Amino acid sequence: MRFKFPLLAIAVEVAIIVLFALYVEYEMDPDLSQQTNRTNSTAADQSLQLYPLFQDVHVMVFIGFGFLMTFLKNYGFGGVSFNLFIAALGLQCGIMAQGLLHNREQKFHIGIKDMINADFSTVTVLISFGALLGKTSPVQMLIMTILEIIVFAVNEYLVVEIFKASDVGASMTIHAFGAYFGLTVAGILYRRGLRKGHEKEESVYHSDLFAMIGSLYLWMFWPSFNSAIAEPGEKQYTAILNTYLSLAACVLMTYAISSLLEKEGKFNMVHIQNATLAGGVAVGTCADMEIQPYASLIIGSVAGLVSVFGFKFLTPFFATKLGIHDTCGVQSLHGLPGVVGGLAGIVAVAMGVTDRFTVSSQAKALGSSIGTAVGGGLVTGLILRIPIWGQSSDLDCYDDSVYWEVPEKKEYD
Amino acid sequence: MRFKFPLLAIAVEVAIIVLFALYVEYEMDPDLSQQTNRTNSTAADQSLQLYPLFQDVHVMVFIGFGFLMTFLKNYGFGGVSFNLFIAALGLQCGIMAQGLLHNREQKFHIGIKDMINADFSTVTVLISFGALLGKTSPVQMLIMTILEIIVFAVNEYLVVEIFKASDVGASMTIHAFGAYFGLTVAGILYRRGLRKGHEKEESVYHSDLFAMIGSLYLWMFWPSFNSAIAEPGEKQYTAILNTYLSLAACVLMTYAISSLLEKEGKFNMVHIQNATLAGGVAVGTCADMEIQPYASLIIGSVAGLVSVFGFKFLTPFFATKLGIHDTCGVQSLHGLPGVVGGLAGIVAVAMGVTDRFTVSSQAKALGSSIGTAVGGGLVTGLILRIPIWGQSSDLDCYDDSVYWEVPEKKEYD
Amino acid sequence: MRFKFPLLAIAVEVAIIVLFALYVEYEMDPDLSQQTNRTNSTAADQSLQLYPLFQDVHVMVFIGFGFLMTFLKNYGFGGVSFNLFIAALGLQCGIMAQGLLHNREQKFHIGIKDMINADFSTVTVLISFGALLGKTSPVQMLIMTILEIIVFAVNEYLVVEIFKASDVGASMTIHAFGAYFGLTVAGILYRRGLRKGHEKEESVYHSDLFAMIGSLYLWMFWPSFNSAIAEPGEKQYTAILNTYLSLAACVLMTYAISSLLEKEGKFNMVHIQNATLAGGVAVGTCADMEIQPYASLIIGSVAGLVSVFGFKFLTPFFATKLGIHDTCGVQSLHGLPGVVGGLAGIVAVAMGVTDRFTVSSQAKALGSSIGTAVGGGLVTGLILRIPIWGQSSDLDCYDDSVYWEVPEKKEYD
Repeated sequence: MRFKFPLLAIAVEVAIIVLFALYVEYEMDPDLSQQTNRTNSTAADQSLQLYPLFQDVHVMVFIGFGFLMTFLKNYGFGGVSFNLFIAALGLQCGIMAQGLLHNREQKFHIGIKDMINADFSTVTVLISFGALLGKTSPVQMLIMTILEIIVFAVNEYLVVEIFKASDVGASMTIHAFGAYFGLTVAGILYRRGLRKGHEKEESVYHSDLFAMIGSLYLWMFWPSFNSAIAEPGEKQYTAILNTYLSLAACVLMTYAISSLLEKEGKFNMVHIQNATLAGGVAVGTCADMEIQPYASLIIGSVAGLVSVFGFKFLTPFFATKLGIHDTCGVQSLHGLPGVVGGLAGIVAVAMGVTDRFTVSSQAKALGSSIGTAVGGGLVTGLILRIPIWGQSSDLDCYDDSVYWEVPEKKEYD
Repeated sequence: MRFKFPLLAIAVEVAIIVLFALYVEYEMDPDLSQQTNRTNSTAADQSLQLYPLFQDVHVMVFIGFGFLMTFLKNYGFGGVSFNLFIAALGLQCGIMAQGLLHNREQKFHIGIKDMINADFSTVTVLISFGALLGKTSPVQMLIMTILEIIVFAVNEYLVVEIFKASDVGASMTIHAFGAYFGLTVAGILYRRGLRKGHEKEESVYHSDLFAMIGSLYLWMFWPSFNSAIAEPGEKQYTAILNTYLSLAACVLMTYAISSLLEKEGKFNMVHIQNATLAGGVAVGTCADMEIQPYASLIIGSVAGLVSVFGFKFLTPFFATKLGIHDTCGVQSLHGLPGVVGGLAGIVAVAMGVTDRFTVSSQAKALGSSIGTAVGGGLVTGLILRIPIWGQSSDLDCYDDSVYWEVPEKKEYD
Repeated sequence: MRFKFPLLAIAVEVAIIVLFALYVEYEMDPDLSQQTNRTNSTAADQSLQLYPLFQDVHVMVFIGFGFLMTFLKNYGFGGVSFNLFIAALGLQCGIMAQGLLHNREQKFHIGIKDMINADFSTVTVLISFGALLGKTSPVQMLIMTILEIIVFAVNEYLVVEIFKASDVGASMTIHAFGAYFGLTVAGILYRRGLRKGHEKEESVYHSDLFAMIGSLYLWMFWPSFNSAIAEPGEKQYTAILNTYLSLAACVLMTYAISSLLEKEGKFNMVHIQNATLAGGVAVGTCADMEIQPYASLIIGSVAGLVSVFGFKFLTPFFATKLGIHDTCGVQSLHGLPGVVGGLAGIVAVAMGVTDRFTVSSQAKALGSSIGTAVGGGLVTGLILRIPIWGQSSDLDCYDDSVYWEVPEKKEYD
């Protein structure tokens, strides 16, 4: 076991380098390079206009998801650092997988937009990782990252190129997909010994504050996530505004429902950290459509309501009755709101908000996203169950000291 | 009490949805929509150029103010999470209040600039919230948010449309206004039982580090705050540079004065977290004027000096002698530096730096900002004193466990 | 001693204000101001296009370096707050030093690009500060900041204007320079009494998480660092992509080598926090050259490997055998990867990737950066050793309570 992870990681990086040498080149438009310097610069500038949006997405991936996963009292190192590992590996795989699928030529050319798409593809894995948090080994994470990115790229190709559906903020292709992929894997890797819970699966005061850093960055930059690959100009602006409003309404509803369902009317940090984001997920599919501002507020409110109910009732039900333990509750943060988003897209298209997409194509996209997620999750889960990947014992779950050198002291001891 | 907050919050969100359905539409220029695609895209691009500035302001609102208010040892959840609640509610109210006041037509159209202004309006409430931190109930916060946003919009309308004064970085309309509104409310809600202090009104080592996250984000992005609604181009650049320099000088002066006033020449984290930001507040009014770089350094130095003296002497004086207890010291961070900013604006106009504004209009703006703040704060404070809003007892102040489910363990117990 | 720091800081700020009044003006192109409004606005817009890149660099300086230096259990206040002090002082000095060296006219005009360069110059000092973390007094930091900024500006002038070498991401002029300057000073200030270590030179669980905030911001925004002063358009895009890829590969290699070298195959947070960044350092010199994407991956992999080996073997060797104690391990994060970057630049030029630079000029730049760093460090170290600057005793190292008022309680005590 001692050398499995390092040797595998080095081998994967070498393979990626070879693939990049064979296939990947800088973005360069042959038409443009013959034109005058000025026009050329304008073209490069257009690509660079995406860079601030890319950076917002980048922060969501590494700080947002990373710190959101530091809420466990003894698994903060793993939460933020395995997130970094998965994302750094995933973006390299994502560039290859998407390039090979979407390109007709022998070599493909990557620009800022491909960097955004590569970051997007890692989000899928990070969502699934949330369901498995604290229960898998680094080798398992590495294998899942590669497999899930491939399945994601296939589904995304189906949705965009075959069904020609709209999913600008990826409610279906990233959020629902990532959640149901992860839940399926979690079901297959279910640990019967932990069905009554685990004493380390808890937060402490400061770990909840660290998680709020991640949560707030996701919340703030979600308008960038939903607009980053929208058509430049009006559609991008529409996606930004709809997401901004949906998230704001979602916060109010989350606080209201959290207080309603918890004893003594108190608020629950799990809801605040997670359900406040459901508005960003749910408005994703129709973010760039002119659904009108008040409709964004309604979508966000519904998403917040659905998400808090999910955390309160569905997540425990899945864990105790269905044998699917979901550490971060991705079902309630990404799964249900992603489906809400897919349905909202169908409704929007049915109501004639846009004539560029059909109800049928949107429905196929939703079905395909859930179907490939469950199918891919099944295969991946079975592979991860092979007992050679160093899965830790039940007792060692949610504990950094298994994979990390952990300091033992406190400040000013 | 049990259902007051959730029902009120849901009712408010429903009311907002109805108002949005009646009044709010996407930004759309009727002239442009008839033109060619290319011009149209250029127009949308101009709006989108504001988006990075909007995001900086957005981070200041949610991470900046949110984490700055986590410094209390047992009120971190409330600090960052009530901040999120107030801001998410406030931005929806801000869009309505500013739209209704500034528009002549029946419907109004919101773009990125309106999102910036909506975020700005929430800052006012967050500043006031700082004065009250740990002493009010969620229902009181909700009511104050709505009332203060309305008063803010009225004062902002007076300053911009009637007095036609300059306040690009909002030293007067946001910082002085928010501080004196909050101080007035704090005075009315004064808790005599806590005049000798409260054992929970203290920081711990790590809560001070969390607060530094907020402080640094405010510090770094203040140039965006002061330039976000400046005229594009040269004025925007001028506002950025002046604020950058003012803040840098303010840091040096804050460290110097903090060490000078504290015993044994030590530094005080309260000063570092707060007074370093006074330079951004104080340069706000004249940020986009050509006051020359060295003048920005002077304004920042004076602001740092005034602010540290305020924290050392004025904040305790207000609490013990005037019956105005100001938890975060917004008087010294926003109040005094805001007034310094208003005065600096008057001096700049008097010295002929710009001929677009008059001394009289600037003076009226300063007077109006303080006057409406105190007036609005009085009315709001009296409403909040009505004993049906569930204000907590003196003993329960500064304690998350009253409104939050709080974990009890530490990591690696 | 009591008044040395505050009086010195005030004197320095006053001197800076006088120098700014004499030399510094707003950016203004005389040609442009005569043209039409529209063109003028376009010119200002071009400068403002750098603003998002500037803000990314700004975040790296204040949050990135600041929180990276909070890893010590009892020196978090000092880590993040002295970082703020040094950077705020350094950027003012940097504007003056670079302006005086690069300008022929009596007055010089500063724009967004100069703000980026000013921030860059502070990074050099922050790197050196990393080597000295916890072992110097505020007065010593203040003096070192001023001296190092001057030496940095001289070397940068040599590299750019005399040798005409390429170093867009400043592998040589910032990273290698800062590291070897700091190491030289650390050698001169070596504390023999601490050769067996210090019980406070340790992290705790949450301080390692705070450090990850800094680390991740450096990691995410490094593409902005390496492209901020690149030629707008294609070169900027190339620098972004190369850095993005180099960093991703570096993460994989860091995890692999960390697990390989640590006992039981565990990961070490010191490596994750630091060596993952070496890819950004090492690709700096040739970031804007068309070295091809796979070459960026190779550079990043090599950098990660070299850096982890450095942390594991070289940093302790320097401390115990050479009498150079390097608190943050800047040797392994900035020094070695910076040299790797300089060598990569030489190789790239030798292989004909660009014909605008020569092998000789690149080699001179590397030599000059290390040479001036060691020379400048020697002089600075000797000045700092003069026993009037209030250096703390060995026992008081790595302890905030010497210079800061520190709270004693924990939350929910």
